[in-house]
Amino acid sequence: MSIRTYVLNDLSAEERVEILKRPRVDFSSILGTVAPIVDAVATRGDDAVREYTSKFDGVDLEDVVVRVSDLPDPVLEDDVRAAFDVAYENIHKFHAAQKELADVDVETMPGVRCRRVSRPIGAVGLYVPGGTAVLPSTALMLAVPAAIAGCKSIVLATPPMKNGEIVPEVLYVAKKAGVTHILKAGGAQAVAAMGHGTETCPKVDKIFGPGNQFVTAAKMTLQNSEAMVSIDMPAGPSEVLVMCDKDANHDHVAADLLSQAEHGPDSQVVLVVTPDVDLDGICAAVSKQAAALPRAEITAKALTHSYAVVVDDLAAACAFSNSYAPEHLIVNVENAEALLPDLDNAGSIFLGRYTPESVGDYASGTNHVLPTYGYSRMYSGVSLDSFVKYMTVQELTKEGLDVLGPSVATMAAVEGLEAHRLAVTLRLGIE
Amino acid sequence: MSIRTYVLNDLSAEERVEILKRPRVDFSSILGTVAPIVDAVATRGDDAVREYTSKFDGVDLEDVVVRVSDLPDPVLEDDVRAAFDVAYENIHKFHAAQKELADVDVETMPGVRCRRVSRPIGAVGLYVPGGTAVLPSTALMLAVPAAIAGCKSIVLATPPMKNGEIVPEVLYVAKKAGVTHILKAGGAQAVAAMGHGTETCPKVDKIFGPGNQFVTAAKMTLQNSEAMVSIDMPAGPSEVLVMCDKDANHDHVAADLLSQAEHGPDSQVVLVVTPDVDLDGICAAVSKQAAALPRAEITAKALTHSYAVVVDDLAAACAFSNSYAPEHLIVNVENAEALLPDLDNAGSIFLGRYTPESVGDYASGTNHVLPTYGYSRMYSGVSLDSFVKYMTVQELTKEGLDVLGPSVATMAAVEGLEAHRLAVTLRLGIE
Repeated sequence: MSIRTYVLNDLSAEERVEILKRPRVDFSSILGTVAPIVDAVATRGDDAVREYTSKFDGVDLEDVVVRVSDLPDPVLEDDVRAAFDVAYENIHKFHAAQKELADVDVETMPGVRCRRVSRPIGAVGLYVPGGTAVLPSTALMLAVPAAIAGCKSIVLATPPMKNGEIVPEVLYVAKKAGVTHILKAGGAQAVAAMGHGTETCPKVDKIFGPGNQFVTAAKMTLQNSEAMVSIDMPAGPSEVLVMCDKDANHDHVAADLLSQAEHGPDSQVVLVVTPDVDLDGICAAVSKQAAALPRAEITAKALTHSYAVVVDDLAAACAFSNSYAPEHLIVNVENAEALLPDLDNAGSIFLGRYTPESVGDYASGTNHVLPTYGYSRMYSGVSLDSFVKYMTVQELTKEGLDVLGPSVATMAAVEGLEAHRLAVTLRLGIE
Repeated sequence: MSIRTYVLNDLSAEERVEILKRPRVDFSSILGTVAPIVDAVATRGDDAVREYTSKFDGVDLEDVVVRVSDLPDPVLEDDVRAAFDVAYENIHKFHAAQKELADVDVETMPGVRCRRVSRPIGAVGLYVPGGTAVLPSTALMLAVPAAIAGCKSIVLATPPMKNGEIVPEVLYVAKKAGVTHILKAGGAQAVAAMGHGTETCPKVDKIFGPGNQFVTAAKMTLQNSEAMVSIDMPAGPSEVLVMCDKDANHDHVAADLLSQAEHGPDSQVVLVVTPDVDLDGICAAVSKQAAALPRAEITAKALTHSYAVVVDDLAAACAFSNSYAPEHLIVNVENAEALLPDLDNAGSIFLGRYTPESVGDYASGTNHVLPTYGYSRMYSGVSLDSFVKYMTVQELTKEGLDVLGPSVATMAAVEGLEAHRLAVTLRLGIE
């Protein structure tokens, strides 16, 4: 197997722009596809969810929504339960460390106290994809920070299995993390049920989670609608950029590339190397491993729109990565830490020889719900902050208003807002 | 003048829901209106911006975009300059205090280091409305945190005056705060120019700022499009909820209500009082002040869809406010601080007798770009965080992977992701 290879210096400016582009998503067409589904759920509630679940998932639901407290504990293998327990602990530790960090309390002038305080978002909806893979890890990534934040209603939506039940590993982590409701549905219909609320599904304030293009389109549709709901970020196909030097182990690099490629046929994998790297050796390792993978077909498809780029040096590698703005960035080089200050745009970064992306996907503690498609330029991955909002609070003493008030009155006069001025001058007794 | 008054306990459940609603915005109709404007600017760039500016603002532009470094310092009255300098200092102090607060560095297990680090968003677009009021204060609120964050390109868009120039106070604060480019345009065309970029306008990564319904619709359209741009929040008409007790000064309460009402005919003002408050006295003060305001017509219109609610006690007042989720919340009661723990949903809170909303609008230090329309349930106001994004970083030692790796391999096997497992086991030498 060979992988398409570019030498960056040989490319024209236009070609450089071209390779940075992701497989094009036709937003307006997909938004058009999900609109009737969203409308049907908004109008007909649970009945519409039942119909779509029967049609798309082949499952006839009795209860669309179940309370987690009503469900029995699932039985898992000991090693599986222990593994998810380790993941839970690390994710909890990293996200709990973010608690109230952003609270601020400043006296900007004598008698003028300004604060910023956090409050949990009341009701949140967590989308956990089903489809080609079972993803209890995503349930952990979303439910743990929601519970730490203190959200009162935590609704987890995921497509049911053919028997109408939820995957036991998903249920296990949902119970452990503190999910309150499970919505047994997937796709745009699940997102719409959480955004609008139904007879049995609580209406949520914010919707989180990755998903296919229909899930993403439903989230985007809802955030621009009367539903009064926000979303974590627009999600696209998963992607990794691997940067390596000549001493990186070929098998490790190959496994990292393939672990992204196996996510889905639309995953994108980019390898950035310096001229002294043995690219043929890496390609040989990719071929050997790829052939043995159970998801070989998906992987092969993903590799067709993946590529390698040869750059002059590691500084150029960082610059290229910043332009690409990957979801995951693996820096498999000697002294990887030294490059961190030059890295600006990435969802999550994996430094050094012993940090494969899969540790972050499951259990290092960081969140795996990350901006894709170049959105790491302006979006952050999911964090504790995603589940709270901040209010500012100011309180002036009489003395504070004495000092600050005249400036406020002057600016209000400039802007022609007389009542704004009066609210100050009447209090100061100078009107 | 009287203001519509409800006694909360006399209302049915349906009536309670009804009064919490804002004047309805027909999202899909407004999105339809701005779509051709956004498309025209995306396709034809500066030419389209020029045409719309000529048509809507009656100004024929020479340069659509000017570099701030090329503009002379505007001449302001001494007291005006001094007032904006005070505002600048306080806003700078409060937002600088938010710098790097949210960075995290945790060892979740021995040899497993997880961090969260911030990076400025590269290019940002700041919308400063023109129209019925001149708003240099909004320029300060957006440009100061953008500069503290370290954004490289800071584009400020605002409608030009009839002579094609920018309001001198806006230019003054733009220069002082570090804006790099000024786009002399307003409305959907300005938002589209920043989101898509034109021949002279840098393409930005995120668009900020309040505006009328067309500005908001353009922002919402762009965030769901191929433009690859995010927005601060959806903005609706400005609003205040004033909570007061029997000892609150009637003139102060009236001025606070009117300072919101004078913003625009669609502003909403809500007064929440306990039964012992002299509502007639407050209404009399509103009438007297309103008649003398230069923006009396706007104010009168805003008051027609405003109302007062009588609740049992201050606990009920807090509950009502949380349900309404106001942009601004004035708590004009004795010991206002004691109510803060019970307040969950508000953009910015003004505590006590000497804290009119106008101090926060201009100069206390907090940001005045805040979620309206009930969106304070899930959105925060603009802050330093709005101008950065966070990347997570993990680095494992060999020992760290020894400890964590087996759990990751187990979970990868559960999810059927074999290459994820290999990326760990190959590194551990157990494959």
